[in-house]
Amino acid sequence: MKLEHIGLAVQSLGVSDELFTRLLGKESYKKETVEREGVVTSFYATGESKIELLEASNSDSPISKFIEKRGEGIHHLAFGVEDLNYEIDRLKKEGFVFISEEPKEGADNKLVVFLHPKSTNGVLIELCQEKR
Amino acid sequence: MKLEHIGLAVQSLGVSDELFTRLLGKESYKKETVEREGVVTSFYATGESKIELLEASNSDSPISKFIEKRGEGIHHLAFGVEDLNYEIDRLKKEGFVFISEEPKEGADNKLVVFLHPKSTNGVLIELCQEKR
Repeated sequence: MKLEHIGLAVQSLGVSDELFTRLLGKESYKKETVEREGVVTSFYATGESKIELLEASNSDSPISKFIEKRGEGIHHLAFGVEDLNYEIDRLKKEGFVFISEEPKEGADNKLVVFLHPKSTNGVLIELCQEKR
Repeated sequence: MKLEHIGLAVQSLGVSDELFTRLLGKESYKKETVEREGVVTSFYATGESKIELLEASNSDSPISKFIEKRGEGIHHLAFGVEDLNYEIDRLKKEGFVFISEEPKEGADNKLVVFLHPKSTNGVLIELCQEKR
C-alpha cells in the first residue's frame, strides 16, 4: 500500500487555498465537488502523495461534523491499492472494521472505502483504487 | 516540498506495531528512540512517504500531552525540503509562525523544525532535511 493522499478538513477553501499555496509554494492543481460525500476538494501535488483540502458543501457533511467536534485539521489518510475488493477481504479477515464495506465513488477518479477509526488507532483510513 | 512522513501518536508501540503490520501487510523497518524529543518511533514504508508511529518515552513527552488532550491519532505531517534554512526564511516572510526556528536533530537522520498549528489550519507541520 502506498500513501496516496492526506485529507485535511478546512472551514473555508478560500482561506485555506491561499494558505497552502503560500506554505507549499505552489497552486492547487485541481478542484472537484463530490456532492454525494458533501465535500468540495482541492488538491496539491506534494511528491507521490497529495494533499486534499476538504470543505463541507452542506451542513450535513461529515466535514462539518468533524470541524464542529475537533476543529480544522487532519481528517484522514488514504492508501492507494491495486485491488480494492481483495484488500477489503484481507482486512476483514484480519479483524478490521469498515464504516461501509461497499466501495463508493470518491474524488479524483477513485473507488473508496473507509476503515472505522475504532479499529485503526483513532486514525480514519481510506483505501482507494483508481477506477478502470 | 514532498510529503516525507505522517506521524501518528500511539499509546503503545507493542499494540500499534502489531496493528499496522496487519493493516499494511508489512513489518516496521526501523525503530529509533529520540530521547530529547521524548519519543520512541517505528517506521513503515508506504511508497515515497513513510508512516512514523510515535510512543511517548516519558510522561513529559509531547506525545503524552497530545494523547491526553485528543486521544490517539494523526499527530503531524512532515514535508521534506532540500534546504531547511531557506524554507524557514521563506515561510517567515510569508507570515508563518514556528514553534522554534532553530533546527533540531530528529529521528531518521533529519534536521527538523515545526510550524505552529495556529498558522497552518490546525495541522502540526514539520519540515525536515536530511543531515549531510
